[in-house]
Amino acid sequence: MRLSAYFLPTLKENPAEAQIVSHRLMLRAGMVRQSAAGIYTWLPLGLRVLKKIEQIVREEQDRAGAQELLMPTIQSADLWRESGRYDDYGKEMLRITDRHDREMLFGPTNEELITAIFRDNAKSYRELPKILYHIQWKFRDEVRPRFGVMRGREFLMKDAYSFDIDAASARRSYNRMFISYMRTFARMGLKAIPMRADTGPIGGDLSHEFHILAETGESAVFVHRDFIETDWQDRDVDYSGDLQPLVDELTSKYAVAEEKHDPAMEAELGDKLVTARGIEVGHIFNFGTKYSKAMGAVVSGPGGESVPVEMGSYGIGVSRLVGALIEAYHDDNGIIWPEAVAPFKIGLINLKKGDAACDAACETLYKAFGAEVLYDDRDERAGAKFANMDLIGLPWQVIVGPKGIANGIVEVKDRRTGERQELALDAAIQRFGA
Amino acid sequence: MRLSAYFLPTLKENPAEAQIVSHRLMLRAGMVRQSAAGIYTWLPLGLRVLKKIEQIVREEQDRAGAQELLMPTIQSADLWRESGRYDDYGKEMLRITDRHDREMLFGPTNEELITAIFRDNAKSYRELPKILYHIQWKFRDEVRPRFGVMRGREFLMKDAYSFDIDAASARRSYNRMFISYMRTFARMGLKAIPMRADTGPIGGDLSHEFHILAETGESAVFVHRDFIETDWQDRDVDYSGDLQPLVDELTSKYAVAEEKHDPAMEAELGDKLVTARGIEVGHIFNFGTKYSKAMGAVVSGPGGESVPVEMGSYGIGVSRLVGALIEAYHDDNGIIWPEAVAPFKIGLINLKKGDAACDAACETLYKAFGAEVLYDDRDERAGAKFANMDLIGLPWQVIVGPKGIANGIVEVKDRRTGERQELALDAAIQRFGA
Repeated sequence: MRLSAYFLPTLKENPAEAQIVSHRLMLRAGMVRQSAAGIYTWLPLGLRVLKKIEQIVREEQDRAGAQELLMPTIQSADLWRESGRYDDYGKEMLRITDRHDREMLFGPTNEELITAIFRDNAKSYRELPKILYHIQWKFRDEVRPRFGVMRGREFLMKDAYSFDIDAASARRSYNRMFISYMRTFARMGLKAIPMRADTGPIGGDLSHEFHILAETGESAVFVHRDFIETDWQDRDVDYSGDLQPLVDELTSKYAVAEEKHDPAMEAELGDKLVTARGIEVGHIFNFGTKYSKAMGAVVSGPGGESVPVEMGSYGIGVSRLVGALIEAYHDDNGIIWPEAVAPFKIGLINLKKGDAACDAACETLYKAFGAEVLYDDRDERAGAKFANMDLIGLPWQVIVGPKGIANGIVEVKDRRTGERQELALDAAIQRFGA
Repeated sequence: MRLSAYFLPTLKENPAEAQIVSHRLMLRAGMVRQSAAGIYTWLPLGLRVLKKIEQIVREEQDRAGAQELLMPTIQSADLWRESGRYDDYGKEMLRITDRHDREMLFGPTNEELITAIFRDNAKSYRELPKILYHIQWKFRDEVRPRFGVMRGREFLMKDAYSFDIDAASARRSYNRMFISYMRTFARMGLKAIPMRADTGPIGGDLSHEFHILAETGESAVFVHRDFIETDWQDRDVDYSGDLQPLVDELTSKYAVAEEKHDPAMEAELGDKLVTARGIEVGHIFNFGTKYSKAMGAVVSGPGGESVPVEMGSYGIGVSRLVGALIEAYHDDNGIIWPEAVAPFKIGLINLKKGDAACDAACETLYKAFGAEVLYDDRDERAGAKFANMDLIGLPWQVIVGPKGIANGIVEVKDRRTGERQELALDAAIQRFGA
């Protein structure tokens, strides 16, 4: 993409309305614009990040055996009356009346709808287990939306739902999602820490939150140092095998968020305790038969008997992750994207637009780099181009200037470390070519 | 995907509520389920088709120089007051009041919101031309939703918006979208016919609808025979060149929908006139400065003067296309997917599950075919498997039975023609392998 043609309205100044760094940087980098309180438009640069995150989530859900479908945003209130949550949900639910005065709502989550779909379409234990997921916009009418996409009203969530014939099988589904969450966050360059959690209004007795650590995190977390220092990502995961030992290992160390923290236990840990700030990016629940019993989601068991299915639900905040990643990866100059989620991998900077040699070299590199390059072909001074490229945070900058190119040399800058390296034109193509 | 594990609730009987063939077949093939009146859940098989169509639309928008962003579903009523359409729109608009009693709505289209985004972020004629698009769920509260996804309430639309400094440039943007629509539909195996159209409530004076022909189409269309019999798809399209001659050629022949038809002109055409049924799958508008003037979307021109931008909007009914494709491509046994939009390209049928040779050959083929195979590994009789595979309409069936496999032979059936061919196992892998 050529920057001269790209719709990328970056800002030099910090917008007054943004209180946290990810919100500030998303506005400044031209990733989003607020269209109403807590409701955002994703501009082209922001949408590219959102889509890359979404795709990683999708691939890891699929790998774990979950199947993608897509439920609508608008739901019938009657479904929520079946579970009893329609009245419980309160003002956070966006309630709607259609032209025929039917009560509808913009889904804040989908336990009821997926339970109804399963109930109406699955009949036998032979169709189990199943894990179904979708990636869809949700709406929660927060009383005071803030922090940009971190706590917006309209937000993109991946929510999966598991259906099993008994508790042991349900635990296996839970473990699959648990491990897939660890893989998902790791692929984005994030170290997620699973923490035993309360189940809250969703119900059930087994639940984990996944937090990533960031200085600006919303809540205090208390974590055993070994967990932070151990890398588990290189482990092969075999979803057809028994995942319990790995889940046990990943949950054996102390790790809790504020509401569960236990000063006595922490005192015992001594200097093994790390106190930090966390951002919740995922939450998983096993809630047994709460919804299946209330809504009649039964299958026939091996002996012909009716069995209410065991269920769980599994959420990842896809749009929230964009903000969380920036909270974890930025410096004073702007965003520092991990490569897997960067909107473009390479920022190509032409230091002297109009200079025949610079223009020609840049065109050659632009073609060679393919879809993953953003080419700053504008007629601007070098300082502005450097600042802009640092702000939007592409992992690699390839810089073409008249002096270097006279010797066939370009400069490559690593956004994260700031290290610069000279490379021959051919070597740059070899390294970054599509 | 193995059918034994896939969430594919197919139906043997025609559901009573479905009046048209695409609705019947989408329900029977387990592609969608209605969750509320005119609101559908896309089950895994249906979602695969929807995503393939969406991706073709996206690629052709990008090729034509449009840039993708994503506007939210929920909009502020105030924006629509600026254009004057809030009161005009009537009961089709789903109006919502949030917890702070602010008037909101579920967007039925996005002229107002994109005009506001452009206004707030673009300043100079040097940033023009721009074409911005998104692929997002819309809501229109139809008084009587019917025909499945063909006329639902919540539906997926691609809508693009162009911004130009003057009318001549706006015409070039219009032409780009015109040609990209022809390419988009052609890639899906559809012959779309552009028809001069009224602009209606969107405004403006230049507009075309794109119809595909299907016996079950919703409206009568009147088309010059030459248009139907000419293939233009092989033509190279150069978006950097002048598209006007090609657009002129594609609009030179008589082609109108019912409300514009002209019996006198048709009489002159004689046997060159074809009267058929059409389904509208796209609609494009040039509406000049209607919204930019009302909402103050101006840029500074070359002389520093304020210029309201010239705009157009360009819609494709993405979810509607799923139904339209089935209306165009089906027979008594089920759907016949064109390859580019088929949920899977290959249906692999194991005629004797449990037979060691059949199972082994199927496993080999399943691995070789990759992501584009649906493997019927169920313990069902052959007739049920054939009927099911014909119903869901994958373009190719690869059939493995004990007699054939004893000689290393499988059968390949072309769903469209019904032709069957015997192939050695290796040849089948060579032909359909990923």
